[in-house]
Amino acid sequence: MLETFFDPTSIALIGATDDASKIGGKIVLTLLREKYAGRFYPVNRTSNRIAGYAAYPSIGAVPDSVDLALIAVPARQVPGVLEECAEKGIRNAVIFSSGFSEEGGEGAALQRQIEDICRRTGIRVNGPNSEGFFNVHAGVAATFSPALDVPKPPQGSMGTGIVSQSGGLGFALYNRGRQRNMAFSHIVSVGNQVDLELNDYIDHLLDDPATGNVMLYVESFRKPKRFLELARRAAQLKKPLIVAKVGRSRAGQRAAASHTGAMAGSVRVTDAVLDHHGVLRANDQDELLDLAAAFSQGKRMRGDRVAIVSTSGGTAVWLTDTCEEMGFEVPPIDGERQARLAQFIPSYGSTNNPVDITAQGVNAYAQTLEVLGDADYIDAIIIASSFAHDTRLKKEGEAIARLVKELDIPVFIYTYTLPSASSMQILQQLGLFCYSTISGCVRGLQGLRAYSKFQEELNGRFGAPDAQALPTCVRRALEGTEATMCEYETKHLLAAFDIELPVERLAKTPQEAVAHAADIGGAVALKIQSPHIPHKTEAGGVLLKLETSDAVRQGAEAILKNARLHVPNADIHGVLVQAMGKPGLEMMAGIVNDVSFGPMVMVGLGGIYVEVLEDTALAPAPLTAHTALKMVQSLKGYPMLSGARGRPPCDVPALCQLLVKLSQLAASSGDRLVEMDINPILVHEDGAGLTIVDALGVRSLTP
Amino acid sequence: MLETFFDPTSIALIGATDDASKIGGKIVLTLLREKYAGRFYPVNRTSNRIAGYAAYPSIGAVPDSVDLALIAVPARQVPGVLEECAEKGIRNAVIFSSGFSEEGGEGAALQRQIEDICRRTGIRVNGPNSEGFFNVHAGVAATFSPALDVPKPPQGSMGTGIVSQSGGLGFALYNRGRQRNMAFSHIVSVGNQVDLELNDYIDHLLDDPATGNVMLYVESFRKPKRFLELARRAAQLKKPLIVAKVGRSRAGQRAAASHTGAMAGSVRVTDAVLDHHGVLRANDQDELLDLAAAFSQGKRMRGDRVAIVSTSGGTAVWLTDTCEEMGFEVPPIDGERQARLAQFIPSYGSTNNPVDITAQGVNAYAQTLEVLGDADYIDAIIIASSFAHDTRLKKEGEAIARLVKELDIPVFIYTYTLPSASSMQILQQLGLFCYSTISGCVRGLQGLRAYSKFQEELNGRFGAPDAQALPTCVRRALEGTEATMCEYETKHLLAAFDIELPVERLAKTPQEAVAHAADIGGAVALKIQSPHIPHKTEAGGVLLKLETSDAVRQGAEAILKNARLHVPNADIHGVLVQAMGKPGLEMMAGIVNDVSFGPMVMVGLGGIYVEVLEDTALAPAPLTAHTALKMVQSLKGYPMLSGARGRPPCDVPALCQLLVKLSQLAASSGDRLVEMDINPILVHEDGAGLTIVDALGVRSLTP
Repeated sequence: MLETFFDPTSIALIGATDDASKIGGKIVLTLLREKYAGRFYPVNRTSNRIAGYAAYPSIGAVPDSVDLALIAVPARQVPGVLEECAEKGIRNAVIFSSGFSEEGGEGAALQRQIEDICRRTGIRVNGPNSEGFFNVHAGVAATFSPALDVPKPPQGSMGTGIVSQSGGLGFALYNRGRQRNMAFSHIVSVGNQVDLELNDYIDHLLDDPATGNVMLYVESFRKPKRFLELARRAAQLKKPLIVAKVGRSRAGQRAAASHTGAMAGSVRVTDAVLDHHGVLRANDQDELLDLAAAFSQGKRMRGDRVAIVSTSGGTAVWLTDTCEEMGFEVPPIDGERQARLAQFIPSYGSTNNPVDITAQGVNAYAQTLEVLGDADYIDAIIIASSFAHDTRLKKEGEAIARLVKELDIPVFIYTYTLPSASSMQILQQLGLFCYSTISGCVRGLQGLRAYSKFQEELNGRFGAPDAQALPTCVRRALEGTEATMCEYETKHLLAAFDIELPVERLAKTPQEAVAHAADIGGAVALKIQSPHIPHKTEAGGVLLKLETSDAVRQGAEAILKNARLHVPNADIHGVLVQAMGKPGLEMMAGIVNDVSFGPMVMVGLGGIYVEVLEDTALAPAPLTAHTALKMVQSLKGYPMLSGARGRPPCDVPALCQLLVKLSQLAASSGDRLVEMDINPILVHEDGAGLTIVDALGVRSLTP
Repeated sequence: MLETFFDPTSIALIGATDDASKIGGKIVLTLLREKYAGRFYPVNRTSNRIAGYAAYPSIGAVPDSVDLALIAVPARQVPGVLEECAEKGIRNAVIFSSGFSEEGGEGAALQRQIEDICRRTGIRVNGPNSEGFFNVHAGVAATFSPALDVPKPPQGSMGTGIVSQSGGLGFALYNRGRQRNMAFSHIVSVGNQVDLELNDYIDHLLDDPATGNVMLYVESFRKPKRFLELARRAAQLKKPLIVAKVGRSRAGQRAAASHTGAMAGSVRVTDAVLDHHGVLRANDQDELLDLAAAFSQGKRMRGDRVAIVSTSGGTAVWLTDTCEEMGFEVPPIDGERQARLAQFIPSYGSTNNPVDITAQGVNAYAQTLEVLGDADYIDAIIIASSFAHDTRLKKEGEAIARLVKELDIPVFIYTYTLPSASSMQILQQLGLFCYSTISGCVRGLQGLRAYSKFQEELNGRFGAPDAQALPTCVRRALEGTEATMCEYETKHLLAAFDIELPVERLAKTPQEAVAHAADIGGAVALKIQSPHIPHKTEAGGVLLKLETSDAVRQGAEAILKNARLHVPNADIHGVLVQAMGKPGLEMMAGIVNDVSFGPMVMVGLGGIYVEVLEDTALAPAPLTAHTALKMVQSLKGYPMLSGARGRPPCDVPALCQLLVKLSQLAASSGDRLVEMDINPILVHEDGAGLTIVDALGVRSLTP
């Protein structure tokens, strides 16, 4: 769709100049230095020759058709110029000029004019306030960024596509990555996103054969749901998305809002949604690059077991620590393989994992790769060496590169010294990437492993049945006139989705309460039901374990009286008479309808300890059974459910089933339900189900 | 003490050669390249001239006195050579040769010979199996490491001293640091530590005027208690210790053990002890350097409030996020200062924090520093820029450098692009350090803040009264013949340290139990007391809330019977009759006597939830009241104690007092007490104290 945008056969630059101190001049220089191979038309009111090319006084005067217009004129002239471009039939434009919505006032008005031209004429616009883009392999450098001044990646290499809501950071990522020998396909600065926005570029890059993964710097998702669709498509295409999502802190949001004019979504929800969609997240430019580099071999990592091969004992120990701390195992090597290693590893080295080939070993890396590469208990190998000098690489670089290609498992390379320029050159020629920090290397491995796991779980994560049409009773319940739904109303919603509830009935009077209690049998609880009394206990609106008719009648009278005292004009629906629940582990669950990403389901351990410790898990609705179980298992307090310290295990399957049904309710209700809190839930012993003790829903009153 | 070792007026190299492929040849080259200014005597059996110097057939033949012997001969010749050195009166030696304890067998025997020579002659030895050392300012490069091949730091600069249990990693740290313009004073590879060990070098560096902080790579602390003494001295001298402690994982310990022949201590204890002593810890080479760089301005950071000044909106947001996530605040700027900033910051920038001076601002960094530098609500400033080109630094580098020196608060500099060589050169000339990762920059700030806080708290942390002589009753109690101490015995220890206990008495018979219960009054608990039944409940040895004489008699009979059934030959001391405790928040506390670091005190929230979540804090005994409170406040569940969700606050002062007294017991008992577990403790409402319900001690049987 963006083919002629990213790979135009002809480009016009409005605002072209020979003055290299101006943006228009910088774009000319960059475009030509990166060897743009198509036709180029500089547009300048006064010069008729720029950088050796014929220049034209206006875009209309250009004698030929133009695929892409680059606009670098003062903000006030931009709408006129863009209009002329559209009239000439140009389909794509980049607006570098700043002075638009980021400035407010007149700038914002100018931006609205541009928006209007886009809508009216269909011209596709990147920017304004953009640093442009670089299509690496086609050699289209439509940018004034100084960061391209590094050697280009080899032709034909599959690489990373960068889409950035900060031009400076986006191009800096390319610059830093190139200094580490990484391959790239495109870099795009999105600017103010008046027309083309984040998702449009991602969409294009997913279809681009030269793009293996997509790296994003994001301050806000303008169209979060479309992003999720793209994330799902990326998963099918096995192209990882690697994202830095900023504007996470309060002060950061304040800054992002003033910087891009958009508020960031809820941090916890965003994290949960991105995790669920297999999107890898990074907190630093280097971490983004470390993660992307992990995919350069195009391999999966099947399990958590890592072999470490080193010439430095200290490095081996440090890597081993970091691997274990980041969730990997460093398993021992079997006796037969150790014997083979001992044939070329000196006695003061180590044939066990971490393997120490010692500084003396000749071709010992390659030989060790041969021995360990097919061990079925090893899922990845890290080679740790020193490339401060190129001796080692000259000696066995080619053999290592061949084995890296041949072996099924990923082989990561790490140097504990900074690599010399000559080492970097050899690595580049061999097509090998080299990490130079331990944490970056193991973080890369962790990202690769997480993504491999995500790919294995794809069906489990995304196979949930679609949202269904709401049953009439639910639709009506959600059309109430009070935001707060009483417990009994909320439970009607749950019941409509086949969620099992304790035996309970609504009584309008104390007399009815007595009758209901007799029907239910045994001890009962009484609870006031009023949309104006969401906190029932605080209002004296709850009584537990009432066993006799007298106790029930007096209790119901007391509760009703308390309620009227507590909230004088409250609309009171009655008193809920409920069978007392069996004991069980206290849990809670809920629904939150996120402004950006839609309905989410939450689960957590209950009780005050765990509320203080905020141990909860969150995922987008609807859930599969697989995801529900993963959520429950991810709780720090999960051992409580699975049977810690000699306690019997709880009915985890019943809890998971509840979450799945709750997620269907959430997905089907969509924006009509703002949130729901089911708390407490008593989860009984394995096989004995659970009891939903209380529930509170909040409707949306603005449909 | 190590003056003539690190700064010798004459050096002899035994094993010197002109063959640069050999270690002896590499040392010659390195020593001369780094311009060793003293007398140099190569020793070689066959040549009489090496590198232009007169060479001698043996060390004995050297005509002059020698301060330092460098030994690079095959392992088997080392003892003989060392003996000759000692005979010649040489006081210091570095043994580069490998083939000693790291190889086992004959090598280990050779190492024992060296050890013997050291003990007998008093010669101080670094190594064997060492990469030697580099005294940067004196220009003594007694090493074969290739990593010195980088420009030296400016003469007279105060810098980092590196002591490393891995030669490769130690010199790589210097190499990496120099490529980031950092200053260093010494680098020492400790080798197998046959004589001089880690602490000896630290000791020397603490007294060295050119060393501002000490960086350590540690696989194991051989003399942990001496290290702690040095850490306390470092604190007084305000010289931070920055440590990578590896061998933390199981597989890492396996590797470290085979690599250095020493086992690593308990990870949690080591962490707690290092934290307590203000030792900064890093997980990566770059993190070590990021932390050391934070101290290069020689400033403290008084509080948590950071101002960010940037030319890139994206960078500002990202830095702000990271600051908040790492515990800092990014406070708003006051109106008066914002007005002053608005005089030179364009309207599309931001005068609030994070401050966006925009790419257009001329001299805007320096001007902003002038405005913000004296705001009493800002404790540090981060300048974020792009140094891919040197324009900005050429323009206002000098003004920035001047302000960095003049301002009281630390000013950190970060570039979101990699700095160009020319930028690095300017930064070097200006004496400015520049971070190039966000996480590194904020991690550096975090280390500086942590160390400043530590310095403020010095008296609070280390003012605890010394261990006291044990009261006779305690000494006797600790001389028992069973490892396990019964509850009542353990409580005698607590009572001797003035710790308040519930009313309780030991009954030998059911009749005595009835009498004791009557004396105590009210409901009582009964508990079996036997060193062979540490888990009383599992043995049917506990009964609670007994209210009548009959219940007490029958209960005591039942408990005694159960105990005999459960452990037929158990030595039963009787039944403890105890007043029932008031309700309270369940906590636990304890003592662990660590093999390396000695007695530690532990505190944690009790109850099964929190046991599963393992929420505990640990510190070395004895504790001050300050440290006890910090421990309690560091618990994730602390809000439970301080009064979360409308609950009344608990008696935290009583809990802290208990910890202090317990720590005195721990410190005074020393190795005689292996561990103690006080669990549960019921902490009552504020002012109402606490109840120690149960306690179990373990004695050391090998005095």
